[in-house]
Amino acid sequence: MAKKQPAVRSTSARSRDRGRATRHRLIEATAELCTERPGAEVSVAEIANAAGVFPNQVTYYFGSKDSLLVHAAFLGLLHDARRAERVGRQAPDAATFRRNIARAVLAMPSLPSVARALAAAISKPELASVVDRHLQLLFRQSERFVSQLIDNRSWSTRRPLSMEVRTFWSTALGAVLLVRAGVHGTAAELDLAGALTIYDESGPA
Amino acid sequence: MAKKQPAVRSTSARSRDRGRATRHRLIEATAELCTERPGAEVSVAEIANAAGVFPNQVTYYFGSKDSLLVHAAFLGLLHDARRAERVGRQAPDAATFRRNIARAVLAMPSLPSVARALAAAISKPELASVVDRHLQLLFRQSERFVSQLIDNRSWSTRRPLSMEVRTFWSTALGAVLLVRAGVHGTAAELDLAGALTIYDESGPA
Repeated sequence: MAKKQPAVRSTSARSRDRGRATRHRLIEATAELCTERPGAEVSVAEIANAAGVFPNQVTYYFGSKDSLLVHAAFLGLLHDARRAERVGRQAPDAATFRRNIARAVLAMPSLPSVARALAAAISKPELASVVDRHLQLLFRQSERFVSQLIDNRSWSTRRPLSMEVRTFWSTALGAVLLVRAGVHGTAAELDLAGALTIYDESGPA
Repeated sequence: MAKKQPAVRSTSARSRDRGRATRHRLIEATAELCTERPGAEVSVAEIANAAGVFPNQVTYYFGSKDSLLVHAAFLGLLHDARRAERVGRQAPDAATFRRNIARAVLAMPSLPSVARALAAAISKPELASVVDRHLQLLFRQSERFVSQLIDNRSWSTRRPLSMEVRTFWSTALGAVLLVRAGVHGTAAELDLAGALTIYDESGPA
């Protein structure tokens, strides 16, 4: 018995590691498919094929394709958000910052997938907690970024940070719905930059 | 021949009328189902049953369920928008107007269905033209409303009207995605009113 126990533990630990690796591979492969074809429908068969697993493992590890799509979309979004933050940090003033961040966010390859994953979640209450967790992560990351930036630059926002980032992401997600679903020339007529109230002292009152 | 032609015309006219009536009934029945259960999945069988038609008539008249859902969602939205306009007209000042319109729009029963219909259209280029037509109608209706209102009250907007309404609807649609997909307490932290730049003279600079 004393000899067997460690072996049992290590087998289950190994299978746990394998499970974690498969989960991770599925999320990565799906995120990549979504980035390659922003906004396109992705099938379970394609996902399984890209990840080198059996199709039923999607349900086994995530419960449903929609849940996996939420994970993948947000993996892409958090990555794209880091890139947008680097763009934002280079802005010499708040007006340029607002403009450049708006442009970078509208060009994010992950944003259509996120909008679609959220829309699918509206009719699937069982996805609420996974959506919530990912959105809280996104909001925290954005708040931290804005907070550090405005501290460093002595800029300020006119709204509490939590409200600033939630309102900004709302406008960005809605903009993607409008622009991607087929409204001609809408991108140019959308004031996503205006969804930011970040100003330096010389900015407009 | 001279006698037959009118008969043929009237038969085809009658069948055209019947077709129009069926189309209309399908849109109305779907809009009603979507209002009763905002954001829920609606099946072709349920729609056909509610409209009293055969399921295959959905495809016959609309090409796909998704296309019918776009028609129905926007029928509901244009109706809800009229109600929100009535709420907006009662506001004594611009600040109250911004607040009340934001609240009315976030409470619209049709908005989750519109967000879902747009998200579905992202992966279906064949829906782009029908989405475009409905959005242009919405934007024109909103522009006309805001234009009349600010003229009557001597209020003003800080952006061109076309940009004002597109940006506002973007934020509203994104807000619905965030709130309905499961983010706790987000509605209170969203500044949809701030997506409007309509001010009276005494308003904040």
